[in-house]
Amino acid sequence: RRPPDSSPDFRHRLAFAVEADRLKTVSRGTTLFDGSRRERSGEHSWHVALMALVLAPHADVPADVARAVRMLLVHDIVEIDAGDNPIHGSFDAAEVERAERKAADRLYGMLPERAGAALRALWDEFEAARTADALWGKAIDRVQPVLANLAAGGGSWRDYPVDMAKMEGRVGAKVKKGAPEIWNALLPDIRAWFAVNRP
Amino acid sequence: RRPPDSSPDFRHRLAFAVEADRLKTVSRGTTLFDGSRRERSGEHSWHVALMALVLAPHADVPADVARAVRMLLVHDIVEIDAGDNPIHGSFDAAEVERAERKAADRLYGMLPERAGAALRALWDEFEAARTADALWGKAIDRVQPVLANLAAGGGSWRDYPVDMAKMEGRVGAKVKKGAPEIWNALLPDIRAWFAVNRP
Ligand SMILES: [Ca+2]
Repeated sequence: RRPPDSSPDFRHRLAFAVEADRLKTVSRGTTLFDGSRRERSGEHSWHVALMALVLAPHADVPADVARAVRMLLVHDIVEIDAGDNPIHGSFDAAEVERAERKAADRLYGMLPERAGAALRALWDEFEAARTADALWGKAIDRVQPVLANLAAGGGSWRDYPVDMAKMEGRVGAKVKKGAPEIWNALLPDIRAWFAVNRP
Repeated sequence: RRPPDSSPDFRHRLAFAVEADRLKTVSRGTTLFDGSRRERSGEHSWHVALMALVLAPHADVPADVARAVRMLLVHDIVEIDAGDNPIHGSFDAAEVERAERKAADRLYGMLPERAGAALRALWDEFEAARTADALWGKAIDRVQPVLANLAAGGGSWRDYPVDMAKMEGRVGAKVKKGAPEIWNALLPDIRAWFAVNRP
């Protein structure tokens, strides 16, 4: 009989793990907190998963942290094919959505069927942003770049025509759905930066 | 009364999340799978957490995947202070252990007491490598650089005086404790590289 190590199930999982490495080369709009270089999507995924874990008591609705962490580990995998689309950048939302769905089909489709469907369902749930776990994950994903920009003295805010109203509408609204306490805590610092730099 | 957002608990958790960003600047001995640059410890932590999730059915002893993922998310945080010590490099093991324990005291100590103690206990469990969850996490942490080196045509193996016997002793022994199936699956490719490059 064939040794277990050559089972097609294992080879598919391994191929996905190898392909995932490419997320480390996808550059994001934001920088590291020290401003030294652009953040990559792989390390961003680690940071938001860790934040979802350590900030969990501050979720608005108690979330299943393990599920939120799993969502965040896979939430940007589509960027391997579709790239990162900065929140304050200009892009065709329908086109991005099409590209990301196609990427999800290919990438989650590398896994054995049930495993791929489970991770794809997690990603769909994250994107739909309606369950407590997805709202918590989304809030962390949106607030992490805010922390980066505050730490870096502006960071990616300097690269885009973003003002306090856009921040409230595009970022604050989403953070507040999952983590209003965190948004409210950061608001004085955010307002202070925009008052000085985008009066 | 004080607003909840200024509670010391939240500020400590947030400070830890901000400090954690520095792990993205710690360079490892290994490269990305495409060989283009050194891997950083932050992105490595994401990759091993994801691998622990997608390869879980191939753990030797069934592991609590959520716990193994949490361990891997925090397993390298000590490197913010202590740096990375490549497995095939030469270093004083006792000195490294001392530096890492001091780093763990400081970094996990930034969190509220119970949260910090919980993550510190997870890290201690990972380092002790005796529970099923830790053995699974360790196996993944050890095998990920092997995948990187195989993908990169040698990678960090070229930088150190490592041969097949050292691979078996330092890497294989640890991978086999948690994931013998994975080690056995990779063994033909590993042997082939060393047969050609370190005959
Ligand atoms: Ca590691």
